[in-house]
Amino acid sequence: MSSGDRQSASGGSLLSWRESPAKRAIMDFLTAVTDRDSGDFVPEFDRIAVFDNDGTLWTEQPMYAQLAFALDRAAELGHPTSLEQLRAGGMAGVVELVKLTHSGITTSEFAAASRRWLASARHPRFGRPYPAMIYQPMLELLDLLARNGFSCWIFSGGGTDFMRAWAGEVYGLPPHRVIGSVGATEFRTGPDGPELVKDEAIRVINDGPQKPGSIHTHVGQRPIVAAGNTDGDLPMLQWTAASPHRTLQLVVDHTDADREYAYDRDPILGSGTQELHSIAAENRWTVIDMAADWVVVYPPLP
Amino acid sequence: MSSGDRQSASGGSLLSWRESPAKRAIMDFLTAVTDRDSGDFVPEFDRIAVFDNDGTLWTEQPMYAQLAFALDRAAELGHPTSLEQLRAGGMAGVVELVKLTHSGITTSEFAAASRRWLASARHPRFGRPYPAMIYQPMLELLDLLARNGFSCWIFSGGGTDFMRAWAGEVYGLPPHRVIGSVGATEFRTGPDGPELVKDEAIRVINDGPQKPGSIHTHVGQRPIVAAGNTDGDLPMLQWTAASPHRTLQLVVDHTDADREYAYDRDPILGSGTQELHSIAAENRWTVIDMAADWVVVYPPLP
Repeated sequence: MSSGDRQSASGGSLLSWRESPAKRAIMDFLTAVTDRDSGDFVPEFDRIAVFDNDGTLWTEQPMYAQLAFALDRAAELGHPTSLEQLRAGGMAGVVELVKLTHSGITTSEFAAASRRWLASARHPRFGRPYPAMIYQPMLELLDLLARNGFSCWIFSGGGTDFMRAWAGEVYGLPPHRVIGSVGATEFRTGPDGPELVKDEAIRVINDGPQKPGSIHTHVGQRPIVAAGNTDGDLPMLQWTAASPHRTLQLVVDHTDADREYAYDRDPILGSGTQELHSIAAENRWTVIDMAADWVVVYPPLP
Repeated sequence: MSSGDRQSASGGSLLSWRESPAKRAIMDFLTAVTDRDSGDFVPEFDRIAVFDNDGTLWTEQPMYAQLAFALDRAAELGHPTSLEQLRAGGMAGVVELVKLTHSGITTSEFAAASRRWLASARHPRFGRPYPAMIYQPMLELLDLLARNGFSCWIFSGGGTDFMRAWAGEVYGLPPHRVIGSVGATEFRTGPDGPELVKDEAIRVINDGPQKPGSIHTHVGQRPIVAAGNTDGDLPMLQWTAASPHRTLQLVVDHTDADREYAYDRDPILGSGTQELHSIAAENRWTVIDMAADWVVVYPPLP
């Protein structure tokens, strides 16, 4: 971040955001809903914000980090699979890979395996540890929302257990606010006492129309802020937009081939962005143009 | 509550608890885990307490309040069912009744229907509104735990949507900490915008070995306090007891035929208490003898 960029930042601590319509929309919204004298005031109890994770809070290219983890784990377990095989297999192939690598293991062992992988794996293009592939501007937004009385939650298509191994700490969220897809577990008494064993059955694939359903189950309140980047996030944004309160919808647009990636279709599973962008334009939702709106993409490395 | 009883109470605000081993166990535990100089100190982040609802926090006799609601709603919908028919049908009959009365309705309409019923229905023996059938001593315990930095959660076999229509307000808990059985929902755009329609599929029956699984999904941390009253709560208590921290297990024993009910088998579904009491004795868990330990059972009516 150059000192010139820093100078131009204002409005709290969105230091990595350029003075653009996106930042203005965020700041205007926050001012309105937190000002008791505003007609748009929202009590703290109802200040709920929901975020997609992959592609919204961190980089999802060239493939979801969790799939990179699953491919490495499959190889470790003696079932090597290539990215090409995975691409060719579509959703069914991904489900098979997840079953193989995410079941028959206790929840504690799985958390430990995820943490081991996260500590050593590096992003193939940027060479960073995956938890350092989060977007610095979104981290600042999460922080600004929290300081304004918001409860921020993640509703991702990724697995809850994998995300909780790193996301809580990195984003500053308690584990109960990190929600994703969920497999069934079996409760049993093992040699070390009671344990939960992850089994093969996938209970919730937390994408598309399931996201509002999961928000209902896990939060039980209608959010007033939602952020996403593909059509799979559209129902969550529509659900939020229909709140009786003033709301904010954020759409992260991947326009930055140099500093991140430029694309309009998410990797492997291929969820598009066309419907999202069309409805965002119709409803004047806030589109974040990564190349234009962000001073930096990633946080400084320690 | 007589002034004599009030006088004998000590230790915070458990005013409706007699000076008995149960109260002493609670107070000793709280003192130990909140004292920074104690070897049993537990940081606030890990102070998680989980409670069963029916029979643990409120009366479940002569039948679960939610079944009384379902029977009234079935009659309204033109499908009258008697309590005898329900008893004869067992779990399958209950599931049929729930499907009939808890589906084909949006989540907002269902919340409104639950609230309408709660405002007018009265308990058949005590004549109280159902939300006034909660146990005053447990209300004081929830409050004392909250004032000691605990996050209290409900994990009940009852339906999440039905409970949230009243439990949050009555127990002082945000909706996301009131968790029960969950049906699937369908996201659709209705005439008034996006809505969630409750459908017939039951996704989670939150009882027995499912309770630790739901705690893992919804909290993501191991509790250090658990309270229940039937064998269906046993896995939740065992899961809690296996925490590396000092823990507290509470078993509510229904011994009070005069002021509440005396029984050892829950209504309709017939979950017993024998295994729970046997394991409680073996592990010296704290059994709450309702007749002996509580000064009053229900809160004063307004």
